[in-house]
Amino acid sequence: MSTTVEKWGVFELKLSTSRKYHNPFTDVKLKASFYNSGQKKVVHGFYDGDGIYKIRFMPELEGEYSYVVRSNDPEMNNITGTFTVTPPSADNHGPVRVTGEHFTYADGTPFFVMGTTAYVWHYRPGEIRERTLRSFSKYGFNKIRMLFFPKHYRGNFNAVDISYEPPCYPFEGGPKDFDFTRPNPEYFRMFEQRVKELCELGIEADVILFHPYDFGHWDIDKMDEEDALLYLRYIINRLSAFRNVWWSLANEYDIGCDEDNPGRFMLSQNRRNWDVIGEYIKANDPYGHPRSCHNITFGWIYPDRPWMTHVSYQHPDTYTLMLELKREYKKPVINDEYQYEGNLPDCWGNSSAELTLLRHWLSVMAGGYATHGEAFVIGENNRDIFWSYGGDMVGDSAPCLKFLKEIVMTCPWQEMKRDYVNTDGQNYFSLSKGYEFYLLFFRNTMNGKTLWIGPKEDPKADVEYDAVFFDVKNCKIIKSCRIRPRTDKIEITAWTAVTLKLVK
Amino acid sequence: MSTTVEKWGVFELKLSTSRKYHNPFTDVKLKASFYNSGQKKVVHGFYDGDGIYKIRFMPELEGEYSYVVRSNDPEMNNITGTFTVTPPSADNHGPVRVTGEHFTYADGTPFFVMGTTAYVWHYRPGEIRERTLRSFSKYGFNKIRMLFFPKHYRGNFNAVDISYEPPCYPFEGGPKDFDFTRPNPEYFRMFEQRVKELCELGIEADVILFHPYDFGHWDIDKMDEEDALLYLRYIINRLSAFRNVWWSLANEYDIGCDEDNPGRFMLSQNRRNWDVIGEYIKANDPYGHPRSCHNITFGWIYPDRPWMTHVSYQHPDTYTLMLELKREYKKPVINDEYQYEGNLPDCWGNSSAELTLLRHWLSVMAGGYATHGEAFVIGENNRDIFWSYGGDMVGDSAPCLKFLKEIVMTCPWQEMKRDYVNTDGQNYFSLSKGYEFYLLFFRNTMNGKTLWIGPKEDPKADVEYDAVFFDVKNCKIIKSCRIRPRTDKIEITAWTAVTLKLVK
Repeated sequence: MSTTVEKWGVFELKLSTSRKYHNPFTDVKLKASFYNSGQKKVVHGFYDGDGIYKIRFMPELEGEYSYVVRSNDPEMNNITGTFTVTPPSADNHGPVRVTGEHFTYADGTPFFVMGTTAYVWHYRPGEIRERTLRSFSKYGFNKIRMLFFPKHYRGNFNAVDISYEPPCYPFEGGPKDFDFTRPNPEYFRMFEQRVKELCELGIEADVILFHPYDFGHWDIDKMDEEDALLYLRYIINRLSAFRNVWWSLANEYDIGCDEDNPGRFMLSQNRRNWDVIGEYIKANDPYGHPRSCHNITFGWIYPDRPWMTHVSYQHPDTYTLMLELKREYKKPVINDEYQYEGNLPDCWGNSSAELTLLRHWLSVMAGGYATHGEAFVIGENNRDIFWSYGGDMVGDSAPCLKFLKEIVMTCPWQEMKRDYVNTDGQNYFSLSKGYEFYLLFFRNTMNGKTLWIGPKEDPKADVEYDAVFFDVKNCKIIKSCRIRPRTDKIEITAWTAVTLKLVK
Repeated sequence: MSTTVEKWGVFELKLSTSRKYHNPFTDVKLKASFYNSGQKKVVHGFYDGDGIYKIRFMPELEGEYSYVVRSNDPEMNNITGTFTVTPPSADNHGPVRVTGEHFTYADGTPFFVMGTTAYVWHYRPGEIRERTLRSFSKYGFNKIRMLFFPKHYRGNFNAVDISYEPPCYPFEGGPKDFDFTRPNPEYFRMFEQRVKELCELGIEADVILFHPYDFGHWDIDKMDEEDALLYLRYIINRLSAFRNVWWSLANEYDIGCDEDNPGRFMLSQNRRNWDVIGEYIKANDPYGHPRSCHNITFGWIYPDRPWMTHVSYQHPDTYTLMLELKREYKKPVINDEYQYEGNLPDCWGNSSAELTLLRHWLSVMAGGYATHGEAFVIGENNRDIFWSYGGDMVGDSAPCLKFLKEIVMTCPWQEMKRDYVNTDGQNYFSLSKGYEFYLLFFRNTMNGKTLWIGPKEDPKADVEYDAVFFDVKNCKIIKSCRIRPRTDKIEITAWTAVTLKLVK
């Protein structure tokens, strides 16, 4: 009986050799060519510890595949085999691709980003992780921003230096003495298990490859460029076969500066370094997973690059700036950090649910995407903030964001553009697909508001729409009715969304 | 004793002839060349009725001028003379010019537009006009949008067909039977007297040359292109010597359509017609007064043209769209109609004072300008709406707009740019001149807001600012103090503006 794997699933080859190497991570070259219907794809393997080498492959075609392994290790060289790729299972839409200014699964299903943040939930105990996954699913989040490396708290709120330690570390040698040429497979296996769990729930893992939150605690940020590229090669070879992987080059890439951190590659604001990383991933990820780079200060939103598939930015402005970035980059734009709902003393973590909801709605009304986060310190324990460690979501915005996504799913979202006529940029906002479909959002009550709906070239046409009015704060449909927006008087209250679908 | 006139004042030559003409408006050619310091300027004269011809000239240089008149009428041909131009009086800063994305008087004084609207106040009785002028001055309005032609009410509120008639009409022949080749000097004299009164108060007259609000009442809109150019020549020759004149080609130029109004030049959406007008004014106004063209629908904001000195647009979006127009046109932008404060049933005339104030503040925070208007129907008389006929301003926004202008006057306004870092586009907004001077506007209370003030390249610099906090709704200074914005905790409540001036 032949091996089978579903399309966009993971085919894994497990190999071994009796030969010993000084550093099997760097000394052994291992790759395989996969063939189907005249197409060939080459992917690289990796050392998984304990004398085991693996090659992972995500088939993008159905039917019969054959492969041949090449290695500088004679025992693994020239191994061949075949396997069968079956149609994808029902919830498997394939990897997410950029299509114009939007995202689409490989099977053509539109992907509407509803992101949230849980930086290092992946190394917390199982019970907490289960609650975290339940929170993601409960509110329909489908993209999680998560750091690969452990994160150390430091900052101007009351959780200084009380971070949780991970159960193991990403490299051999341990804290303050890492050998960056020797990854610790245990840490990587732990991380990729989380990626798989997200995949099973239909959630994209936005993997943040580098970050500056070490503060001398582990000295992971002492990597130089050569170390960084070795790490990249290893993580790409391990993770890229998972269809739900995204690559975020950095969190707050511009937080450091050259002067403060000589030789610390990932703490440099020097964009040349990040370009090296971006180009490396573009050249070496066989599947072209989404790639972006996340900033801290406004002026340093990463400029456009060929390696960048979409824009990831941090800024509390989700509307005007989003529109500007969309125009400038002509790529999908995600506001990946518009400040968090929470109760911290600092403005980055004390937004109300209302402000969070407003910012998220406005990212949508700008034709863009956004990522939410919760920064509530709960009870006496000032560590267990969802934004960092996961747990249970407690904020009031998450259910409303779920509802937001449900509303957008009723719209021809990717075909909609800003409708200038019914948008004042502060109180009411509109997107439309021609005059066939409108999505309106009202932040404030507007008395006697006239909607300018219908074909501009025929202002007297008697158009009729199926309308649905949504209470976006209380997550319920107010009413569904048929209206003639050019003659019917419509009462609009604050925090209402309306969809209008042309009947005739 | 020689004739004297101040710089940027009006020198007027009054001429006459014993000869009779079939149509003295079109049959007599009359112009004069004015000479000073090797410079020559040619201006055209006009027939003022009763056998009187006039040539008006605004001298832009001090000292001795000589002139020589040329005419096809032998009695007026070759008349010469001299006069002396004295320095301008204290309140005379000369005409307003475009400088980059801003406006500046000819003497170098920055001009900050604070506009309002009174379409046909100019033909109401004297007592009403005096109250109108007092309202303009009381609230510091310095640019008035006013129609040259009479305006007829029609529309979907309760003032249908009850407009006031002007005491006389712009052309001979009277309503429904105008001879567009024979202007009525009485009407023009009445109008230019209003322009002079505004000039004495230091107010710019934004003269709207054409408009579509006739609705078959007088048939002034039956002009064809030849009529329109004759009228333009006449009004330019009469009015351009007044330093406070601006030319607005149209109000809502795109309200009509070719099909509905064949042959009605000013009711055509055909931009070619408006380009003809704009080019004509540019070529024939000897002083280059500001020129713009005002739209009704968003998609028809007039595209950039060489004849256009600045952008005049109508739209309730004074922030995002303002920023977009500034970037696109690279000229000053005035939102000349963001909907009016008032109590009409329709959304164009029922904004609250708060919404009016918000929209006006946001035009400023976008680095642009705006024009206010009041549309209150008061008591039983549903005609006397300030927006149309003037009278007393009664809205609550006007005093706050005066205060807004006073705040801006304390800033290096023309040198300030949007400060992205301290702007979220919905709740707080910032302009700055480098890090030397900031103007911040808070629409909403922001708890624990961190301001990112000071040199970005030196984030640890201990900067100190003189701060003034303004309550923009109650028009008062909350406090003046010295602050260190990088360390001091600042409490910000809604509807506060703050100026910060670098001390060290």
